[in-house]
Amino acid sequence: MPRDARDALRAWFLGPRAENADLMERLITESFRDHVFWRRNFRPEDGVTIQEVDRRQEGYEAANATLTQELMSLLAQLKRDVPFFSGRYQGHMVCEPTIAAQVGYFAAMLYNPNNVTREAGPVTTRLEFEVMEQLARMIGFDPATTWGHLTSGGTVANFEALWIARSLFYLPVAAAMAARAGAPEVSVQRPDGATVPLASMGLYELLNLRGPAALDAWDALRQAVPRTAWPDVIDRHTLAHAGYQEYTRRLARHWGDPLPDSVVLVAATAHYSWEKIVRALGIGAEQLCFVPVDRYCRIDPDALWERIEQLHARRTPILACISVCGSTEEGAVDRLDRVLEVRARAEEQLGVTFHLHADACYGGYAAAVARRPDGSHRTSAEIRASTQINWPSDDWVKSIVSLGWFDSVTIDPHKLGYAPYPAGAMLLRDRRARDLVAVEPPYLAPPGGGAHDTSFMGQFILEGSKPGAAAAAVWLGQKVLPLDERGYGYLIERTVVGAHRLYDAIMTADLSPFRAVMLPRPDLNIACFVVTHPSLSGITTLNRLNEEVFRQMSLGENGQVPDYMITRTRLTHPNYDGAVPALLPGLGLSGTEEWKACREGLVVLRSTVMDPFLAGDVGGTDHVVGYVAALRRACATAMNNVISA
Amino acid sequence: MPRDARDALRAWFLGPRAENADLMERLITESFRDHVFWRRNFRPEDGVTIQEVDRRQEGYEAANATLTQELMSLLAQLKRDVPFFSGRYQGHMVCEPTIAAQVGYFAAMLYNPNNVTREAGPVTTRLEFEVMEQLARMIGFDPATTWGHLTSGGTVANFEALWIARSLFYLPVAAAMAARAGAPEVSVQRPDGATVPLASMGLYELLNLRGPAALDAWDALRQAVPRTAWPDVIDRHTLAHAGYQEYTRRLARHWGDPLPDSVVLVAATAHYSWEKIVRALGIGAEQLCFVPVDRYCRIDPDALWERIEQLHARRTPILACISVCGSTEEGAVDRLDRVLEVRARAEEQLGVTFHLHADACYGGYAAAVARRPDGSHRTSAEIRASTQINWPSDDWVKSIVSLGWFDSVTIDPHKLGYAPYPAGAMLLRDRRARDLVAVEPPYLAPPGGGAHDTSFMGQFILEGSKPGAAAAAVWLGQKVLPLDERGYGYLIERTVVGAHRLYDAIMTADLSPFRAVMLPRPDLNIACFVVTHPSLSGITTLNRLNEEVFRQMSLGENGQVPDYMITRTRLTHPNYDGAVPALLPGLGLSGTEEWKACREGLVVLRSTVMDPFLAGDVGGTDHVVGYVAALRRACATAMNNVISA
Repeated sequence: MPRDARDALRAWFLGPRAENADLMERLITESFRDHVFWRRNFRPEDGVTIQEVDRRQEGYEAANATLTQELMSLLAQLKRDVPFFSGRYQGHMVCEPTIAAQVGYFAAMLYNPNNVTREAGPVTTRLEFEVMEQLARMIGFDPATTWGHLTSGGTVANFEALWIARSLFYLPVAAAMAARAGAPEVSVQRPDGATVPLASMGLYELLNLRGPAALDAWDALRQAVPRTAWPDVIDRHTLAHAGYQEYTRRLARHWGDPLPDSVVLVAATAHYSWEKIVRALGIGAEQLCFVPVDRYCRIDPDALWERIEQLHARRTPILACISVCGSTEEGAVDRLDRVLEVRARAEEQLGVTFHLHADACYGGYAAAVARRPDGSHRTSAEIRASTQINWPSDDWVKSIVSLGWFDSVTIDPHKLGYAPYPAGAMLLRDRRARDLVAVEPPYLAPPGGGAHDTSFMGQFILEGSKPGAAAAAVWLGQKVLPLDERGYGYLIERTVVGAHRLYDAIMTADLSPFRAVMLPRPDLNIACFVVTHPSLSGITTLNRLNEEVFRQMSLGENGQVPDYMITRTRLTHPNYDGAVPALLPGLGLSGTEEWKACREGLVVLRSTVMDPFLAGDVGGTDHVVGYVAALRRACATAMNNVISA
Repeated sequence: MPRDARDALRAWFLGPRAENADLMERLITESFRDHVFWRRNFRPEDGVTIQEVDRRQEGYEAANATLTQELMSLLAQLKRDVPFFSGRYQGHMVCEPTIAAQVGYFAAMLYNPNNVTREAGPVTTRLEFEVMEQLARMIGFDPATTWGHLTSGGTVANFEALWIARSLFYLPVAAAMAARAGAPEVSVQRPDGATVPLASMGLYELLNLRGPAALDAWDALRQAVPRTAWPDVIDRHTLAHAGYQEYTRRLARHWGDPLPDSVVLVAATAHYSWEKIVRALGIGAEQLCFVPVDRYCRIDPDALWERIEQLHARRTPILACISVCGSTEEGAVDRLDRVLEVRARAEEQLGVTFHLHADACYGGYAAAVARRPDGSHRTSAEIRASTQINWPSDDWVKSIVSLGWFDSVTIDPHKLGYAPYPAGAMLLRDRRARDLVAVEPPYLAPPGGGAHDTSFMGQFILEGSKPGAAAAAVWLGQKVLPLDERGYGYLIERTVVGAHRLYDAIMTADLSPFRAVMLPRPDLNIACFVVTHPSLSGITTLNRLNEEVFRQMSLGENGQVPDYMITRTRLTHPNYDGAVPALLPGLGLSGTEEWKACREGLVVLRSTVMDPFLAGDVGGTDHVVGYVAALRRACATAMNNVISA
C-alpha cells in the first residue's frame, strides 16, 4: 500500500517540471474531442450552422486573429504568476491541483452545466451529491440523514452554516409564538432529557434547546397543521419572515423581554471571514466572542467552559460555537473531542446548549488520514508507522474522528482537496435544517423529492448559479484519490511529513547570528517561526526584521521571483494570549506587556507545505535545504535593511 | 461593420456542430503547452522531481489507469447533459460560452490563482480590475470613482449590494450616535440641498439621506478623528459592530424610538434570490415590498410613487429600491429613467430618498448594444437600422443608458457575457461605500493603496477564495468581443432578433385547434406565451396543458432529449396583477378572480434565446420552423395526456 501510494503520488500531479505533461495533454485533448463528437452526434440531420465558406471570410479571419493575439497576451501576462507548483513556493495554502480535478473541471466546463437545478445540470448535480456523500462518510456523518452541497468557498459555506444555526436557534421561539397565536401546542426535549410543552418555557430555556430537538418539535407542529396553512400559522413567526426589527418587538410582547443578545463563540484562531459573517447576518461583530487558545493555538476547553459559565450567569444565550479544524494561520486542530465534552457538561450542569460548528475548511480532508479503505478508523500508531515521524498523536486522531458529532462542518475541496477554485463544501448533520433557509417552501417543490432531491438545489442555498464543472472536478479527484489512507490520506500525510521536515530543518539550522524561534510542532502542514538577532530589542524592531525577511522571500512588486517564497501572519493580543507568552523568552522579550501593547502583534513567518514532494525521497533539488539557505540569506539582507532604515 | 461582426460571430463560438473545433483545440493545446514550458523554464537547475523511473512503476501505472478509466466514466456520464449548444435548446438562460472565455478560463486555471489577494493572484487580480473598468464604462460609471469586483454569481453580487446599502442607510445614524458620545459634530447635505448638522436631525430624517452625502459626512467625521481612535470613537456605532439587537436598544435610547421598520422596495419581477437575501441579512421577508409591474412586466413608476407616498405617510424609511434590468422570467427592462425620476420627485416633494440598485444580472451586457466603439451612445434609430426589426424603442435606450445613474449595479458575465460559471459582478458608483463592509479596516491595509488597490480584495467582499481563472475568462471574452456594437452589442442584438423571430413565428403559427396567447414583445431575448385549446376552461386545466407541453419539451427523467427544449414559469398574484389581466380574455378566462385565487398562478411557457444563430441567415436547419412544429406536436400529445388524466 504505501509503496503503491508512493508511486501513485507521482501520477496525481502534473509535477514541478510538468513531468506528466504527456498524460495530462492526452486527457485534455481526449476530453475536448469527446465533447466535439458529442456535438457532431447530436441530431446530425441538423446540418452545419457555421459553413466552411463563413470560415473563409475576412471578418472571421480577423476575429480569429484577435482571439489568438489576445490569448498570446494573456499567456504572456500569466508568466508573471506565482509558481505555486514549485518546491520553492512554501507560502499560502495554494498549490497545483491534481490532474484529475483539473481535467474533470475542463471536461465538464465544455458542457457549461449549472448546478442550481437538475434542469440546468442533470449530470453534475448528481455528481455533486455523490461527492457530498463521500465527504459525509469521511467525517463520520450518515449520508442518509445529511445535507451537503458545494459552495464557491469556505466563507460562503461558513456563512450558510451560521445562517442555518441562527434559524435553528430561534425555531423554538417561533413555535412558541405560533402556539400563542393559536397553532397546536407541541412539546420539546430539553437538554436534560425531559420532554416539556414549549408554551411552558421561558425565553432563555427556549434558546437553549438542541437543534435536533427543535426540529422534532417543528416537525410535530407542521404535521399538526395543513400544509397550505403553514405560511400563515407557522412560517410568519420565524426570524426569516419577521426580520430582526419586528422580532424584537414581538419577543418583548410575548416574554416581556427584548430580543436578548446572543453570542457566537469562536476559537481565537478563527478566520477573519467570521467577522464578515456575523456583520452581514446582523448579529454584529460585538457578539463574536473569541475563546482563548492554548499554546498549540487550539481552543482552550477550560477557557470555553469558563466563558459558558460566565454567559450563563448573565443569561446570555449562545447561538453557536465554532471550533477550528486546521486554523488558517497555524493549521492547528482544536481538540474537537474536548469541545464536545464541554457542551455535554454544559447541558448536564447548566441546561445550556448551542449549535456546534466545525470550521474544517482547511483541515477537513485530513480526516482521510484516519480512514482505512473499508471506512474504519486507523489508529494513531498505524498512521505513525506510515509517516515514520512522531505524528499524529492519539489526541489528534481523537479530535479528527470527533468531526462526525458536530452539527455542521465546512470543508474546502479547493484547499487540501487539491481541486481548482471554486470549491467549498457545507455539511449539515441533520438535513432537516436546510428547510429553514429554503426560499421556495419545500411544499411547492416537485413531489417525490427525497433525501437526494436534486431537482432544485438553489432553494436551499445562498448562491444561485454554480458551476457544475466544480462538482465534476471534485468527483474525479475523489475517484482517483479515495478519501482514505490510499488517496487523500496518503497525500496529506506526505505534506505533514514535509512540514515537520522543514520545521526540524529550520529549528536546527545554523542561522547565526540569527536564531529561529519555533511555534509548536504543526498539527497539520503549516510551519511557523520568528527569526531574531541578538542585537535587536523590542517587538517593533523584531517585527521589522521579520517583515523584511518576508519581503525578501516573496514576489516583488514587479513580479521578481525570489529563491524561495514564504508568507507571514501576525499574532495579536488578546486572541493569542495563550500562545505567544511561551515564545517571548526565546525572542529575548521579557514579559507580555510590550507585545500586548503592540497593535500589530507579533509578526510570524509561515510556510504552508502543500507540496507532497518536500517530504523527500524525490529527485532533483532538496528544497528543504534550499529553503534554509535562502532564509539565512534573507535574514542577512533583512537585517541590513532594518539597520539602514 | 455589421458585415464584419456577422462573420466574427461565426468565430466566437465552438458552434452547434463544433465547427470551430480545430481553432479551439489549437488554442487549448497552445495554452497547455505554454504552461508546461513555463514550468520547465522555471529554475531548470532544480532538476526533475518525478523521475522517468518513477513513471515506470506499477503503482504509477495503476494510478494512471484509474485516472483514465474514471475520466472515461465521467465523459460517458456527461453525454447525458443538456445540449445547450444546439438551436434545439431554447429554455433557460444558458448557452455555450465563447471560445475566448473558455480558453481564458482554462489557461489561467492551470496557474491556479486566487483573486482574494494580489499575493495569490498577481496577474488575475489585475485582469479583474481591467474587466471591472470595462464594465463600469459600459454602464456609464466613472471607473476612477467606482468599485467593482467579480463574484461567484448574481445572488452574491446582489447580496453585497444590499449589504452595502444597509450599511450606508444606517451610516448617518452611526455618525449621529458617535457625535452624541463625544465625537466631533459634522454636517450633512439633505436631499433638499440644505446642509445641516447631523445632531439636529430626527431619526427619520437621518434615514433619508443620499448615500454620497452620508459618505461625505462620514469622511468629514473620520478626518476629524485620529485613525487609531476610529474603532472606539466611530466604528462601534455602526450596525456592523453592534448588531441589530443592541442597535435597537441604542436607537430607542437616543431617539426614544425603537429601530424603525425599514423596507426594501423591489420590482415584482425580482428574482427569488432577493427573498433569500433579505432573510439572511436579518431584514426579514416581510420587509420586502413588491412594487407592481405594468403589462410589459416592467416596474410601474406610478405604483412606485404611490408606494413611496404611503410609506412616507407612515414614516417608514426605505432602505433601498431595486429595479430590474432584464427580469429572469421575461427579460423585461424596467424604465430605469422613470425610476430615477420618481426618486428625484420623492426627494424634492417628500424629503424621502433611498439607495437605488439595478439588478442587471441578466440584462446588463445589453448596455453594449447602445455603445459605439468610441464610448458614445447609439441612437435607437441607429440600432433599429442594424436589427432591421422594430426594436429597440427610444424608451428602451433611455432606460439602458440610465444604468449609469444608479447607486449600484450587478451584472453576470456568466449570463449575457457568455462566460463560463462562475462569474457575477458587483459595481458601486461611489467606491467609498466599500469601506463600510471592510473587515480589515483599510487603515491597516498596506500603504499606498489607491483606486486600484488590488493587494487584498478579500477585505471588501463577502467571499474569500475566488478563481482568478474567472477573471481571465471574462477578460479574454471582452478583449475579443468589445463591450459595444462590434462585440457584445452585436451578439445580443442577434439574440433579440432571434427571440422576436421566434415570437412572431409562434404568434402567427397555425396551431389549430390550439392557440398561443403571447405575452408582450420581449425587451430582450426571452419569448413567453401560453397555449390554450377551445375545449378547455378554467385556469387549473389550462395550467395542466401548459405543464404538459413543457414536459413534452424538456429533458426526460432518464435523460431522453426531446426535439426542442423550452422551459416555463408561473405568474402569480399579486406580483403580476399588472401583466396578467391583459392575457386572460385571449385565454377565454373572464375576470381575474380565478387567477388570483389560483395559488400556482398562470403557467407560462418560456424560451430564452441565447443562441445568436436563431435569428437566421445560417446554414443547416431553421430551428424557428422546427420549434413551431415541435410545439404543435407537443400540444397534441399534452392535450391527450390532460384528457386521459
